[in-house]
Amino acid sequence: MEERILGVLGGMGPLASAEFMRQLTLLTPAERDQDHIPAVLWSDPRVPDRTAARQGRGPDPLPALLRGIHGLEAAGAGAIAIPCNTAHGWIKGMRAATRLPILHIVEAAADALRAAGIGPGPVGVMGTAATLAMGLYQEGLRAGGWEVLLPTEEEMARLVSPGIALVKANRVADSHAPLAEAAGALAARGARAVVLGCTEIPLGIAAGPALPFPVIDTIEALALAAIRWARASSPG
Amino acid sequence: MEERILGVLGGMGPLASAEFMRQLTLLTPAERDQDHIPAVLWSDPRVPDRTAARQGRGPDPLPALLRGIHGLEAAGAGAIAIPCNTAHGWIKGMRAATRLPILHIVEAAADALRAAGIGPGPVGVMGTAATLAMGLYQEGLRAGGWEVLLPTEEEMARLVSPGIALVKANRVADSHAPLAEAAGALAARGARAVVLGCTEIPLGIAAGPALPFPVIDTIEALALAAIRWARASSPG
Repeated sequence: MEERILGVLGGMGPLASAEFMRQLTLLTPAERDQDHIPAVLWSDPRVPDRTAARQGRGPDPLPALLRGIHGLEAAGAGAIAIPCNTAHGWIKGMRAATRLPILHIVEAAADALRAAGIGPGPVGVMGTAATLAMGLYQEGLRAGGWEVLLPTEEEMARLVSPGIALVKANRVADSHAPLAEAAGALAARGARAVVLGCTEIPLGIAAGPALPFPVIDTIEALALAAIRWARASSPG
Repeated sequence: MEERILGVLGGMGPLASAEFMRQLTLLTPAERDQDHIPAVLWSDPRVPDRTAARQGRGPDPLPALLRGIHGLEAAGAGAIAIPCNTAHGWIKGMRAATRLPILHIVEAAADALRAAGIGPGPVGVMGTAATLAMGLYQEGLRAGGWEVLLPTEEEMARLVSPGIALVKANRVADSHAPLAEAAGALAARGARAVVLGCTEIPLGIAAGPALPFPVIDTIEALALAAIRWARASSPG
């Protein structure tokens, strides 16, 4: 029996985790249950708010993240995917605490940009205030030759942060308009594609009409990276 | 910190498990991540085919089911939900192997029938050939005063079994027509509602126009039962 199991450190938020599991399934070539990738999803929505912690307004999420990682290790996981961009701000602490490889969502997004034919030049990145303040994408995408355009502070406060909060509160349909407006503003300022760099954002964007410019769904990008890991590590 | 965690024994199939996690999230009243229910999903699509085993054509799934249950126990689960109807044919063996309560999907479906106002009388039940042969629903619903109508053997072979297989092969859109036709045939024979008693079936039914008679989505019914468990066991 194939023993490679994908560990998914999720719950941040739980709807994005469910969507990650759905895309992991739908993007895997399969004819029957047994062709799909074994996975354990540790969905712990109690992990302290990552943005609040980074802004000094709440407790450190690292202990809860490590509890999840150790739970996934105990369940037999061979690698870890984290469908929450902001949590990647703690990746050093997580990597120091486990021997398991952690698939990096920013690298997965860069792979997706390349696969979409978006070469060097300006791309937009939407995310939580903490993801943008920590520079997760600015640093990760600069190495690939992309120039990162961010929402303005006004757009963050009026559109992006409220849109993310609406998804976390199960008001997905209501989140479409503010998130689509913020993405459109980045495209209007020259972004050739917009990276939806918070896993709540693709859920909101998908709840309305398709946008007239390329977007990178970081849930899908991470699912594809996970499938590549699972397939590369399978015997035969 | 609230220590009650829902264990989800899934992967049978994996798309139904993802949908269970999605409905668990969307049906939970929540304003932020931390209001959602902590859960661990053990998604093991390698569990031997339940229908093949029951028909003597494949290995016993019980050892793989118990491996999942023990993994969920180790992860700290306080109860187990299994979003696969056919697997409930092994519930005695599972209950004998764990002290954790297992929420029964047939009881959840009966609760959903009552909540939908479907009183005693004929109701249709669709499911795998094994679920119907084991009488999971016939026995469970008779106690509540319902009379169970089943698809004919011809409908099972031409519509229901192929429809379920299409969902497991990620061909969800293609599964709608055969599954909807089988449900419609039960309604035409007098069923006042049709229980979608295999967790692949609601995925296929949702992929097309709504049916003109009540259906019971056993993924949703089990998610609601899990939310009731989580809320009843929460302090405060």
